[in-house]
Amino acid sequence: MFISSTTIRVRYAETDQMGVVYHGNYFAWFEYARAEAIREMGLTYADMEKMGIIMPVIDVHARFLRPARYDELVTVKTMLKELPLHHKIEFHHEVYNEKEQLLTTGRIILYFMDKTTGHRSTMPESLRQQLEKYFQ
Amino acid sequence: MFISSTTIRVRYAETDQMGVVYHGNYFAWFEYARAEAIREMGLTYADMEKMGIIMPVIDVHARFLRPARYDELVTVKTMLKELPLHHKIEFHHEVYNEKEQLLTTGRIILYFMDKTTGHRSTMPESLRQQLEKYFQ
Amino acid sequence: MFISSTTIRVRYAETDQMGVVYHGNYFAWFEYARAEAIREMGLTYADMEKMGIIMPVIDVHARFLRPARYDELVTVKTMLKELPLHHKIEFHHEVYNEKEQLLTTGRIILYFMDKTTGHRSTMPESLRQQLEKYFQ
Amino acid sequence: MFISSTTIRVRYAETDQMGVVYHGNYFAWFEYARAEAIREMGLTYADMEKMGIIMPVIDVHARFLRPARYDELVTVKTMLKELPLHHKIEFHHEVYNEKEQLLTTGRIILYFMDKTTGHRSTMPESLRQQLEKYFQ
Repeated sequence: MFISSTTIRVRYAETDQMGVVYHGNYFAWFEYARAEAIREMGLTYADMEKMGIIMPVIDVHARFLRPARYDELVTVKTMLKELPLHHKIEFHHEVYNEKEQLLTTGRIILYFMDKTTGHRSTMPESLRQQLEKYFQ
Repeated sequence: MFISSTTIRVRYAETDQMGVVYHGNYFAWFEYARAEAIREMGLTYADMEKMGIIMPVIDVHARFLRPARYDELVTVKTMLKELPLHHKIEFHHEVYNEKEQLLTTGRIILYFMDKTTGHRSTMPESLRQQLEKYFQ
Repeated sequence: MFISSTTIRVRYAETDQMGVVYHGNYFAWFEYARAEAIREMGLTYADMEKMGIIMPVIDVHARFLRPARYDELVTVKTMLKELPLHHKIEFHHEVYNEKEQLLTTGRIILYFMDKTTGHRSTMPESLRQQLEKYFQ
Repeated sequence: MFISSTTIRVRYAETDQMGVVYHGNYFAWFEYARAEAIREMGLTYADMEKMGIIMPVIDVHARFLRPARYDELVTVKTMLKELPLHHKIEFHHEVYNEKEQLLTTGRIILYFMDKTTGHRSTMPESLRQQLEKYFQ
């Protein structure tokens, strides 16, 4: 399993009038955390796009257990539980507050897609090589 | 079953550099469509909050089948497949483009919560009475 | 002068924990209102992009006089006070609530830019012809 | 003068189909940078709200000179050029990319407001004492 962790300071813009973070805003956090996870592997998602691979999100599931609040420093964990097969990759996320309470869980499935043709593609070889280390 | 339909014009702000609507932005559309659905029942979610009931989102699932693009007029369908029991309510959403292609499906579970105490609550009686008509 | 008006229902996602619309969210409303204004002239901004002209925003000024609140139906007025010269176009916006109270004023300057070269461009001739009617 | 600096990694969610950061998203960056600036003074904006002072934004001006792009690590400078008098405070912001190119400038005026009454208020004494050090 590959695990990565990053922190995010909650912005005022991310709250709603319930006084907590709006549910739709967690997906930008997950995306940010995935980008940091890929960076830890020595690659960037931005590079992947330059190589012609885009990764559209095709399926998301999230559970909101406790609210995140303005100015909290939340930790977003990103987990890859299995080496991606074929065209899809599945990330798991967990969001914790400073008291280490689990706030939110997420599961995001993305597709490897050729930017030019719009057809499905596979994980870039450089990323696969990095990832294989975590699954042996 | 209760079904409601509303249209939304895609904003530039909602696109990302992939040239399509960012996945996290669909949740604001679903929320807007639920508010319109409740309005059709003769009530507003804003009124519910004034009555002391808030409805935090506790679980979301969405599948992204085809992208939505800038300036498209999408139709968001909102469905209530069963009368809510106890503290939760489950909405289903479908997003269609102008060619009537299904772009996205969503399932959103919300909680009825007492705004003052933060404890779980039940559906306001006025909303239940409106809804019961659709489930007989 | 060219004047156009459009309405927007305030989304929950657009509020913050102050219980009002977050100031940064008005710019997406202005952008939506500009797109509707251009549509009234018989063209769309989406078409302009397809013709190879993009319009990046280069300068904004907004004053927030009164807050907009969740579920309000606000009216966004878009005004073009003079025919654009050269590479820039300047729009003025006013946001009103249902009581016709002025909530916000905005002034947005955009650039006509060639999408391919990134160099400055001029207003498409088809848009200029439409606009000239309002300035004679 | 008081100057503070903070860095922000550009999120995919913040880009639009022009391939650059959407202009409306800079205001959340400015807000984040102001919160970090206040934290450097030994206070937090979150604390101020708990003390009953809210700070609605009443006037913004921003110029967009160069685009910010996905995954760039931008630096947001926050400057207070004079000690706030009475009810208002004026912050200046500058956004730089990793090549130290100036991308954006902003000027944001906020109001000190009593959260309970909605009337104008003044800067909390604890914040004034911290700030005075920079203006002697």
